[in-house]
Amino acid sequence: MEKNILLTIEYDGANFYGWQKQPDRRTVQGELERALSAVCGTEIKIDGTSRTDAGVHALAQRATFKGEIKIPTDRIVVATNNSLTGGKNALGAVSDVRVIAAEEVPHYFHARFDAKGKKYIYKIGTSKEKDIFKRNYLYQISEELNTDAMREAAKHIVGTHDFQCFQAAGGEEKKTTVRTIHDLKITREEKNEIHIEVTGDGFLYNMVRIMSGTLIEVGLGKINPMVIPIIIESQDRQHAGHTAPPQGLYLVEVYF
Amino acid sequence: MEKNILLTIEYDGANFYGWQKQPDRRTVQGELERALSAVCGTEIKIDGTSRTDAGVHALAQRATFKGEIKIPTDRIVVATNNSLTGGKNALGAVSDVRVIAAEEVPHYFHARFDAKGKKYIYKIGTSKEKDIFKRNYLYQISEELNTDAMREAAKHIVGTHDFQCFQAAGGEEKKTTVRTIHDLKITREEKNEIHIEVTGDGFLYNMVRIMSGTLIEVGLGKINPMVIPIIIESQDRQHAGHTAPPQGLYLVEVYF
Repeated sequence: MEKNILLTIEYDGANFYGWQKQPDRRTVQGELERALSAVCGTEIKIDGTSRTDAGVHALAQRATFKGEIKIPTDRIVVATNNSLTGGKNALGAVSDVRVIAAEEVPHYFHARFDAKGKKYIYKIGTSKEKDIFKRNYLYQISEELNTDAMREAAKHIVGTHDFQCFQAAGGEEKKTTVRTIHDLKITREEKNEIHIEVTGDGFLYNMVRIMSGTLIEVGLGKINPMVIPIIIESQDRQHAGHTAPPQGLYLVEVYF
Repeated sequence: MEKNILLTIEYDGANFYGWQKQPDRRTVQGELERALSAVCGTEIKIDGTSRTDAGVHALAQRATFKGEIKIPTDRIVVATNNSLTGGKNALGAVSDVRVIAAEEVPHYFHARFDAKGKKYIYKIGTSKEKDIFKRNYLYQISEELNTDAMREAAKHIVGTHDFQCFQAAGGEEKKTTVRTIHDLKITREEKNEIHIEVTGDGFLYNMVRIMSGTLIEVGLGKINPMVIPIIIESQDRQHAGHTAPPQGLYLVEVYF
């Protein structure tokens, strides 16, 4: 009988060309499908909740796949992780993607279409000196940010708006650019880090990165927080800030 | 006129096959010599203080090179860093090696032969859950360590001893295996990290890693700290602990 399995997956995006399978490039979907096909003894295709870009990380990406799967569900995690090699680095096979959980779900359940929301964190480094060990894990701007101004700006973003101003060209066509941001927190972390934590019902292409770039420009004093509603109303990408780079972005949670 | 230049270099060792140049493999020396040769307009060969293994990191490796160098010394840092590409990852050219400083030194000065001592830090992660983002930066043992026992053991290591017991096969021939450990600290850091900080006049092949593996076994209760003097006196590698893996090791300082 065909099973439908929901996976929870974490990965360090630094050495992946993003989630989505591509010929001749190492991607998270590609690595997982290779490992799962070996483990399940049949060709597996997975549907991920979020098609994260190259360099973007995930603490709990979700994905579903169906098939005549003989291996017991409670053995999928260990077997798949044993089959993931982690790409080639000087340390050999230390995997940068890992399955955290696998559970059977009803046949109609789909990791992407049934997602009701997601939480992302965007991490910014403010130390004057750039840290070579964090080059793939933070956006190191090497300047102090005014978090009060950022929080003021964040208030104008929370809620239901047409977020076309925060959408990059090149994503797949969406029926609407209206989205709801439930929560948007700016927090100071130890060691000169500032985190932008955002929860919403869905995000347009590059939306979190453009929103983060805009909030950073607010924090640097380049954009007045009062201008945010005008940027949103303009529905014009040109008026928002720059696209913050992928390495600061972490997919933290998916809500069903 | 020939100049002699002393460099200070930091690198993330995860994607290097160690310091020493090898054909067809990415090494720190290889990358630096390529960049320096381009910058100086003449073929440059560098001598590093420490030939770190694959996966080992450095906060301040040192290296000297000589040549008819036309570029002013104070421009070497920026020019060399601009020429370092950082290997290929999904983020493109984010370099994992960086020159921090360059200074002219007397012609007789040599980064390796004139080194009077070195400081290393070995970083251990004790969190139950392994952190995928730290897989290349800590030895994640996922168990608590008895640091009091480790400090007790460390007292027996400090001083001048024949450290053959902490020497791996395969290094270059040394005239003597007697070394002086000036200082050996075990510290608890935030976020479930324990650091072993060791300063000495010189280290045998894999000495810090074998010493760290031995101290970890003391911390786990597998080796009694009282046994350390017997292990040292035995001059037998078999009696010491395992070789801790490279990713926990950082070359922190070189003393001249």
